[in-house]
Amino acid sequence: MHDAGDRNHRILFSLRPEGTPVPESFGADTTAVPTPGPGQFLSRTLYLSLDPLYRAAMRGNSEASLRLNPGDVMSGETVAQVLESRHPGYRSGEYIVVRNGWQQFALSSGQGVRRLDPDRAPVSTALGVLGLPGLAGYTGLIYLGEPRPGQTVLVSAATGPVGCTAGQAARIVGARAVGIAGSPEKCDYAVRELGYAACINHRSGDLAAQIRAACPGGVDVYFDNVGGEVLSCVVNLLAPHARVILCGMSEAYNVEVPPPGPSLAPVLSARATLQGIVVQDHLHRLPELERVVGSWIRAGLFRYKEDITDGLASAPAAFCRLMRGQNFGKALVRVAPEHL
Amino acid sequence: MHDAGDRNHRILFSLRPEGTPVPESFGADTTAVPTPGPGQFLSRTLYLSLDPLYRAAMRGNSEASLRLNPGDVMSGETVAQVLESRHPGYRSGEYIVVRNGWQQFALSSGQGVRRLDPDRAPVSTALGVLGLPGLAGYTGLIYLGEPRPGQTVLVSAATGPVGCTAGQAARIVGARAVGIAGSPEKCDYAVRELGYAACINHRSGDLAAQIRAACPGGVDVYFDNVGGEVLSCVVNLLAPHARVILCGMSEAYNVEVPPPGPSLAPVLSARATLQGIVVQDHLHRLPELERVVGSWIRAGLFRYKEDITDGLASAPAAFCRLMRGQNFGKALVRVAPEHL
Repeated sequence: MHDAGDRNHRILFSLRPEGTPVPESFGADTTAVPTPGPGQFLSRTLYLSLDPLYRAAMRGNSEASLRLNPGDVMSGETVAQVLESRHPGYRSGEYIVVRNGWQQFALSSGQGVRRLDPDRAPVSTALGVLGLPGLAGYTGLIYLGEPRPGQTVLVSAATGPVGCTAGQAARIVGARAVGIAGSPEKCDYAVRELGYAACINHRSGDLAAQIRAACPGGVDVYFDNVGGEVLSCVVNLLAPHARVILCGMSEAYNVEVPPPGPSLAPVLSARATLQGIVVQDHLHRLPELERVVGSWIRAGLFRYKEDITDGLASAPAAFCRLMRGQNFGKALVRVAPEHL
Repeated sequence: MHDAGDRNHRILFSLRPEGTPVPESFGADTTAVPTPGPGQFLSRTLYLSLDPLYRAAMRGNSEASLRLNPGDVMSGETVAQVLESRHPGYRSGEYIVVRNGWQQFALSSGQGVRRLDPDRAPVSTALGVLGLPGLAGYTGLIYLGEPRPGQTVLVSAATGPVGCTAGQAARIVGARAVGIAGSPEKCDYAVRELGYAACINHRSGDLAAQIRAACPGGVDVYFDNVGGEVLSCVVNLLAPHARVILCGMSEAYNVEVPPPGPSLAPVLSARATLQGIVVQDHLHRLPELERVVGSWIRAGLFRYKEDITDGLASAPAAFCRLMRGQNFGKALVRVAPEHL
């Protein structure tokens, strides 16, 4: 239960940013903690997930189901704990994944809520490698990429929750995983901790030459989390019949009009396939993700990194940092301690 | 047999063009008609195929196997008749597909030669709808596009040998074929003769609005023969899980550095697949093409148009016309009459 004196702190979307979001894009307020009606429950937010997707929601021209308007509570996936329930399916104390958004408390009717077993893995992983980012990396790599043992799988944003899942899954199924990341620290971590055969810093020198050196037989599978210049470079280095999985376009997040894509002439001559993955199409594979990747984690085969910021008030600055690519690991805000 | 006095007229590649080729890109000479050695045969060229591919061969930076150097006889596929044979597999009078290039007579060792049955279909079709262009259109549409009955298949360069094969195959297997072509005459022909449900003139007005009107449920399969602006437009109009077959990039033929491609963000959100087709990968399906499309032709279900120019000397001007998109139907040069 929350204390009678508790108030609900919330972060609001305040001003559509031009380009990269700034702290002034956000506001804050405080309201009463709401009381659940029949069929509802109240939960306390423990972890808030910061996702580049919500940059798109801040755009006036984004999809209606996603679009934020000034004054709205910022939206986002959270891990929360049920505090008070008038819902027959949830009882106080349970851990759940729920879209509480950027606030300390919220009501839910249970729609879209996923129950968590805190003994299986740290509950925060439900927003990362055992949540939607991991699902995109795992299903995109396994079902769209179809890597064969010995093939070379290149992964951009290699240390993030999507990339680290794709890259480690590639290695574990017998492929050779090569990463691309944005700093020497990330590259070092990718090789030392995540088991990439090599990792290329895309901010240092000739990207094409570096990829060619790390992938002498060409790229059989490219798991693309960034689009833009990196994708334009990689399409020239594809092995015959390569598969490219388009999973994110981080270079396009901060601009209104998407930039042109890579020349497709090399895609044609490589007989390559380009395919987009939208994680919502693969929600039925969440139990498989939890089972398979969960077992890899428990066996010590699979690692992950979280970039945790403390306190809801720090969320705007942490989100801006994420949108500048300065996070290292899955970006989370710890809104409340797991055990009060 | 050729007359003792016959000479071999040849068209040579003379000067690398900048941009669209001009007649001055070519030269000509006359040599003696060669005499076959053991294991060789001499053939007389009947039809010369003009293909955009050879624009790429005129580039200094093209693939080595394809590259033309100034002074070389222009290369090209031809239908020819064996005149004199010292090859055990070929006898005088037989019709063949052979890469004689832009000349009246040539020797061959039989490598890469395909024998033709002149009773099955006019021999010129072996360079068009029953040759490599038809093979690209047929296999790309059927095996990569996988159109389902009732789905909408959009085809650019809809009246050319590749496009007309893809579009008519789509219609015959039960899909709804919509064409894109470059003039009112071509569009009229596409609907009236080729059976497209609609055909859009990409030179008249708002292309996106026209496609949207002709494909109200979105585009399930896009068979792309042109790339460039048309492709960039179509990717925004894809139905969920659409397939895009990349078969040609005519907008890039006359430039040295391929332009960027379409934004891939709409490809991602449509969960679409982009795949290139290289016809050489499908040569084993030539007998299937001859059997299936041949039967459609004989049943009157499938039509085609040839744009025939008479005389080898007219080949340079006809090729330049093709590269400006001014041909209408498969571009051929009749080098000699079929029956002397």
